Amino acid sequence: MRIIDLDQIKDTLQGLDILPDIEAGFVAYSQGKCVVPPVGELLFKDPPGDVHIKYGYITGGEYYVIKIASGFYDNPKAGLPTSDGMMLLFSLNTGIPQGLLLDHCYLTDVRTGAAGAIAAKYLAPRNVQRIGIVGAGAQARQQLRHLKGITPCREVIAWGLNQDELERYRAEMEAEGFHVETTLETAALADTCNLIVTVTPSTGPLLFADQIRPGTHITAVGADTTEKQELDPAILAKADLLVVDSVAQCLVRGECPHALRAGLIGQEKMVELGKVIAGEAPGRVSDEQITVCDLTGVAVQDLQIAKAVYEAEIRE
Amino acid sequence: MRIIDLDQIKDTLQGLDILPDIEAGFVAYSQGKCVVPPVGELLFKDPPGDVHIKYGYITGGEYYVIKIASGFYDNPKAGLPTSDGMMLLFSLNTGIPQGLLLDHCYLTDVRTGAAGAIAAKYLAPRNVQRIGIVGAGAQARQQLRHLKGITPCREVIAWGLNQDELERYRAEMEAEGFHVETTLETAALADTCNLIVTVTPSTGPLLFADQIRPGTHITAVGADTTEKQELDPAILAKADLLVVDSVAQCLVRGECPHALRAGLIGQEKMVELGKVIAGEAPGRVSDEQITVCDLTGVAVQDLQIAKAVYEAEIRE
Repeated sequence: MRIIDLDQIKDTLQGLDILPDIEAGFVAYSQGKCVVPPVGELLFKDPPGDVHIKYGYITGGEYYVIKIASGFYDNPKAGLPTSDGMMLLFSLNTGIPQGLLLDHCYLTDVRTGAAGAIAAKYLAPRNVQRIGIVGAGAQARQQLRHLKGITPCREVIAWGLNQDELERYRAEMEAEGFHVETTLETAALADTCNLIVTVTPSTGPLLFADQIRPGTHITAVGADTTEKQELDPAILAKADLLVVDSVAQCLVRGECPHALRAGLIGQEKMVELGKVIAGEAPGRVSDEQITVCDLTGVAVQDLQIAKAVYEAEIRE
Repeated sequence: MRIIDLDQIKDTLQGLDILPDIEAGFVAYSQGKCVVPPVGELLFKDPPGDVHIKYGYITGGEYYVIKIASGFYDNPKAGLPTSDGMMLLFSLNTGIPQGLLLDHCYLTDVRTGAAGAIAAKYLAPRNVQRIGIVGAGAQARQQLRHLKGITPCREVIAWGLNQDELERYRAEMEAEGFHVETTLETAALADTCNLIVTVTPSTGPLLFADQIRPGTHITAVGADTTEKQELDPAILAKADLLVVDSVAQCLVRGECPHALRAGLIGQEKMVELGKVIAGEAPGRVSDEQITVCDLTGVAVQDLQIAKAVYEAEIRE
């Protein structure tokens, strides 16, 4: 078994374009070729924490993946990161362990950023005027970074809860070639951006239906549980096209459950991203449409990024 | 994270008495102190295989464990072992990975052997005349090896399906200090042994109620799924005492479901091994009793052996 640490993973990723792998994963998923059982879970009370075990494979593929990701919410008090984790890759022919990727959840961040870029690739309007980022944390960085290859737009406005966090975000993203304004009001984003990405742990709407202008695309990344929510459910109703990474998963997690429960949308409105990528369902067809993509994270993304990094490592 | 390979694991185990750890695990389990969610599973068709993910922790303990164990049934055709796997130990306070034990399922074999020894310690008659082993594979070796510290008896009769396998078993076990006879008839075991251990993948009874003499203890190890079976269900009805590693698990796996379905026993007859160890339920109380212990394997055994090996390693 090849053991690959975080430095090696970061090095390897620099030479890789993982978007085609993640796209292929979404397509396989939407074609019913993925086996992804329900997530395994342990919950802890004292100190508070949880661990999730995600696992699965693509039928006819070479590997199955097991991803372990923990969150221990008192860790920062001891100067430790909240999250830790790893991905394990096994041969689908023999069960023999092939790779252990000690990524401390970094690959999850990257594959989530990549999914946001894919959503923008198929759903954003042709001319992105300004990118709005709701959130200023690690994933807000990943999302913007991954959009670089999708749109030439470098104008950004970022929303956050406190100005210090926003200033750090601005400094880091400007060093990466963006021009970043900041705001404490989400309305300022909706007024000037036609590509908005939401990446917060919010449990209530941050963007509202009456704010959203025709021709806007929104990728909702933050909500991945039953409780979290970033969008007014009426935005999903107002959208001309509602795309999700997984219909099965978005029935219970992400933005869709709120709109479904409120009777504002029906399940038939939810179109899987893999079908749009494969050309089996239309993506954006005009610059006037409002489109929304609800991303909750699917194990096939973990499989595809682990495979890409592992195979690049053994080629070296 | 400390990475411990199979050679190191075997070395470390030589200096360890893991029985007290496994006993403590059974006690904690029976006291409701263990969190052990349902087993995660992936099934594969071509080539045929499966992987099981077992995970859990003891409340108030130091670690949680995740065990990954695969079986790929065509592997031997390619000269590869059927089973592979590993155990991972994480801090229960921070989620940070502590140890990776690359045991290739060896620790599962050992903790299963240890559980058999614990069953014999509490349930075998005082004077073991002869040990009967139904089976001649890897686990038949582990069971006998672990009985060495429990009984001075070195007289053994082993049953198997073919004489070659039995001869290999005899040679190996005699080199370890036993005197081994072999047989192709299980009746020969029941006639002369008052401690019998069954360790086969059989899906039908190998021992029958009318063969079992008063004063016999049987540990049934082989059946760990809903389909497998080694004992005539009437043996469980005839037994004066029926002990199980986990009531919850033995309602659906092992020998008990067959007897429960046939209406030969009720759930109230099933006594947990942890309660016997803790003195909360009686073990054997006379040399005339027939006792049966149904072992299906509980994740707390994995936790306890992984912890024992890891802690011995970091002490070195």
